[in-house]
Amino acid sequence: MRLATIRTATGTRAVRVDGDSAVETGEADVRALLERPDWAEHAAAAAGPVHDVATLDHAPLVPAPEKIICVGMNYRDHVQEMGNQLPEYPTVFAKFAPALVGARDEIELPKESDKVDWEAELVVVIGHSVRRADTDEARAAIAGYSVLNDVSMRDFQNRTKQFLQGKTWEHSTPLGPVLVTPDELPDGGWRISSTLDGETMQDSTTDQLVFGAVELVEYLSAIVTLNPGDVIATGTPGGVGHARTPPRYLSDGAEIVVAVEGVGECRNVCRASQ
Amino acid sequence: MRLATIRTATGTRAVRVDGDSAVETGEADVRALLERPDWAEHAAAAAGPVHDVATLDHAPLVPAPEKIICVGMNYRDHVQEMGNQLPEYPTVFAKFAPALVGARDEIELPKESDKVDWEAELVVVIGHSVRRADTDEARAAIAGYSVLNDVSMRDFQNRTKQFLQGKTWEHSTPLGPVLVTPDELPDGGWRISSTLDGETMQDSTTDQLVFGAVELVEYLSAIVTLNPGDVIATGTPGGVGHARTPPRYLSDGAEIVVAVEGVGECRNVCRASQ
Repeated sequence: MRLATIRTATGTRAVRVDGDSAVETGEADVRALLERPDWAEHAAAAAGPVHDVATLDHAPLVPAPEKIICVGMNYRDHVQEMGNQLPEYPTVFAKFAPALVGARDEIELPKESDKVDWEAELVVVIGHSVRRADTDEARAAIAGYSVLNDVSMRDFQNRTKQFLQGKTWEHSTPLGPVLVTPDELPDGGWRISSTLDGETMQDSTTDQLVFGAVELVEYLSAIVTLNPGDVIATGTPGGVGHARTPPRYLSDGAEIVVAVEGVGECRNVCRASQ
Repeated sequence: MRLATIRTATGTRAVRVDGDSAVETGEADVRALLERPDWAEHAAAAAGPVHDVATLDHAPLVPAPEKIICVGMNYRDHVQEMGNQLPEYPTVFAKFAPALVGARDEIELPKESDKVDWEAELVVVIGHSVRRADTDEARAAIAGYSVLNDVSMRDFQNRTKQFLQGKTWEHSTPLGPVLVTPDELPDGGWRISSTLDGETMQDSTTDQLVFGAVELVEYLSAIVTLNPGDVIATGTPGGVGHARTPPRYLSDGAEIVVAVEGVGECRNVCRASQ
């Protein structure tokens, strides 16, 4: 099953996406849908107003998650190519919800930064509340997967040792377009990539993850209850702009596509803010 | 004016605290109150049900802020005693809302950590939305001040370079008890302290802040719109347990008090979780 949050003339709606059509489930967004204990059956049976997929206006998949948890240093090939040891623990940091934009929205390039970079990431979306999960509980708590571009203002990220101020700029971070339930996906090893104006920048597979989706849910749920609609962005492979020679950054009018095979892609044009 | 969020038999309520009595304003909590453009006049005129202050059950001052932004390395005396240069930019990181507890609640000591530490902090609460604020706009966006104990699991904080996993443990972080509007406070230089089982641990004044309240609102509002109920914890002075010789940590049954003169105090007993 594929779920999305779309904008309509009368507000956002959660929809089930079936091929060329999208059917409203009755909830305002995917978080409200996932907060129903029966969300899977409810969404599968939904028969509300129908939209043509070609005309959908995607909001962020979850417009206002309680938590957006991002993981760094989590692709084996990238860690090793940088000459680093594989980490013993996940590196985690946060974004705030106002950073999110939809999968086809413009990315806002703030006038304060001239080092705006991309990061293709596989996202885990939580489907029910879980604390101190074991492996089976962690697997069962995953509603599905999506895609996020962890857009990063490298100049601000590197002003201090804490990443937050480079990671949570308003209207910077595409999330979506859909949540894909695990039953629709093959086991592991999904291709993950980013493409800037048609040129491939990142190209790896999710079997390079140091800490996989289930392991991250276990680890993070020790710290805090993970709740429906919570978003875990699992980290990015090598090939980001700041690490290239010479460095590359996003500029006004550029199109950046981040994709996970079988899950979806965020395709966004960058726009300098006034 | 002093505002709080209290728990009642039928849910939380925002109240105006007048000496020995607390008057309900009609909103569910201080964030909902601050989201009214007329919050100051509305709260001043409120004449709802009245509670005896001695019986109040304080919820976190803002139970679910959109953002909890914490500042590190922000007390001049503490930075200098550690032999460090004064920072050029604020160090900022996040907490998630489920970390919060009320000003008299128990602090949950998780079984996973044996290095739980205190940090007395002055808090800024935002009173109206502001982006790219200049100094006057930043000052006007401050609804008032409160107190937070930025309880930190030092073992988890130091597992990686990013602080989040040591800072956002569930039910760890007292916030409150009240918001005090700026007109009730003298200019700057408020005493800030922490006391563990009656023994003074931190004792400084807020004129030691490297980046003050107004400056932090200016800086952070460049990155993202600050909204009503957003919480900025402005950092802690020297004297935390992890930096003591020998180190000191919170243990089951300990009482930790963090206070800012004229603003209030969080007084919490620590309880080991099962």
